[in-house]
Amino acid sequence: MKLLRVGTAGSERPALLDPEGVLRDLSGVVPDIDGALLADDEALDRVREAAGSGELPVLDATGLRIGPPLARIGKVVCIGLNYHDHARETGTEPPSEPVVFFKAADTVVGPYDTVLVPRRSLKTDWEVELAVVIGRTARYLESAQDGLAHVAGYAVAHDVSEREFQIERGGTWDKGKNCETFNPLGPWLVTADEVADPQDLSLKLWVNGELKQDGTTAEQIFPVGEVVRYVSQFMTLYPGDVINTGTPAGVAMGEPEPKPYLRAGDVVELEIAGLGRQRQEFKDA
Amino acid sequence: MKLLRVGTAGSERPALLDPEGVLRDLSGVVPDIDGALLADDEALDRVREAAGSGELPVLDATGLRIGPPLARIGKVVCIGLNYHDHARETGTEPPSEPVVFFKAADTVVGPYDTVLVPRRSLKTDWEVELAVVIGRTARYLESAQDGLAHVAGYAVAHDVSEREFQIERGGTWDKGKNCETFNPLGPWLVTADEVADPQDLSLKLWVNGELKQDGTTAEQIFPVGEVVRYVSQFMTLYPGDVINTGTPAGVAMGEPEPKPYLRAGDVVELEIAGLGRQRQEFKDA
Repeated sequence: MKLLRVGTAGSERPALLDPEGVLRDLSGVVPDIDGALLADDEALDRVREAAGSGELPVLDATGLRIGPPLARIGKVVCIGLNYHDHARETGTEPPSEPVVFFKAADTVVGPYDTVLVPRRSLKTDWEVELAVVIGRTARYLESAQDGLAHVAGYAVAHDVSEREFQIERGGTWDKGKNCETFNPLGPWLVTADEVADPQDLSLKLWVNGELKQDGTTAEQIFPVGEVVRYVSQFMTLYPGDVINTGTPAGVAMGEPEPKPYLRAGDVVELEIAGLGRQRQEFKDA
Repeated sequence: MKLLRVGTAGSERPALLDPEGVLRDLSGVVPDIDGALLADDEALDRVREAAGSGELPVLDATGLRIGPPLARIGKVVCIGLNYHDHARETGTEPPSEPVVFFKAADTVVGPYDTVLVPRRSLKTDWEVELAVVIGRTARYLESAQDGLAHVAGYAVAHDVSEREFQIERGGTWDKGKNCETFNPLGPWLVTADEVADPQDLSLKLWVNGELKQDGTTAEQIFPVGEVVRYVSQFMTLYPGDVINTGTPAGVAMGEPEPKPYLRAGDVVELEIAGLGRQRQEFKDA
């Protein structure tokens, strides 16, 4: 299923994109799309049944904002340098174990929302990523297979990053990853049963129409199931947590000088095969 | 005021410790203690008025669990190496600007709850910290004074840390800071009007009865107001966010070999003058 949330920010209602591409209202079936729903097999079955009935009310998509496809996100765990090609372009060795950092859930916005270039930013950069949404509490998992079994679904994430804040201002990467609006998510949460192989997804990102990132999750150093297993050794993952699993090559930081960092007026579009497309206009904070 | 939350985990009710040390029920006045309350001057006035009336129902404290004094915490921003004496003991130069890392809100537990030593942990360490609770949205603040004006109150935090996970496993510090139960908070949220000078608070921590940390917030490299101002340049702080402002000297990592890292059975007690006392027994995860 392709689950989404539509409406003004903070007042989104649950919806579903049916196999014919028709937007349908889910608010009569479930109150929202969140960790509680993803952990509740009965409620998910009700959604599936309603979806299959073909009787869900059709929503008029005209002018309707699409919000992030998940409400009440707990934490956003991010994996750094998780693509062979991206590690090469940043001039770093592939890590021997996953690099972990955090984005706060309050950085998450809808896939078409405006993204703000932080004040005094010189190096705002793009990163298309496969986001994994956790559906079952994951704690000290023993295998990558078990890791995959804890995934409720997948979505497109934009891990917007300020490289000077991230790397040149002391401390950890979090400083350059948590500016407001820095995590567009969606349009859809695609349930795991519809993603045949999370290690065979094409990811693309364009800046002002120019293709910048053109990768595949086959290049991931640590695949999705292993990432979930690994992270669960260090922290407990709860339903409604999100993991951004890293970006392929092609970010501004990897280009020759002068690097084309983002500024107000730039438009970024990104897409993962089967998971939909985002488009953000950048403005000054 | 000393605000707190009592009851079983996940079902706490709001309460108040009155000037005579009597525990009183606030659940007839406000639904909970959270960012929404702290941002709502009228609701806070209602609490103040009820507290002043002396008519709030008395709660029987016997056997009553004290939870974290804040519900629905957004993010927990942490400042590293923020005490001159602690920077010295870790053998690092005082940072030229604050070191920022994150704890997930799901690591927060009550001040007397059990803390779990993670599986395969070799270096679980203690850190008593002054926690700052944000009461008003803070975004690109211009002065430390303005930073202080966005603080709703203060609490004792235990920034439990696994040093091997934090430092020796690649990536950022977050990996050693987010194990479950790693952020006891409370017992009270003391409103800012009752803390005359946040830079003149004594912090103490004992392990199995032995005094290990005996510091003062006067040693902070970046004082509270400056921390809030600084962090607000990189991310937006919302009501109900928490900042752990760093730990003074005296952690296990700073001791000679063999360093006395924590194990199941150890008891840690910590205290900040005017903010109350915590006590945790450590068990295996």
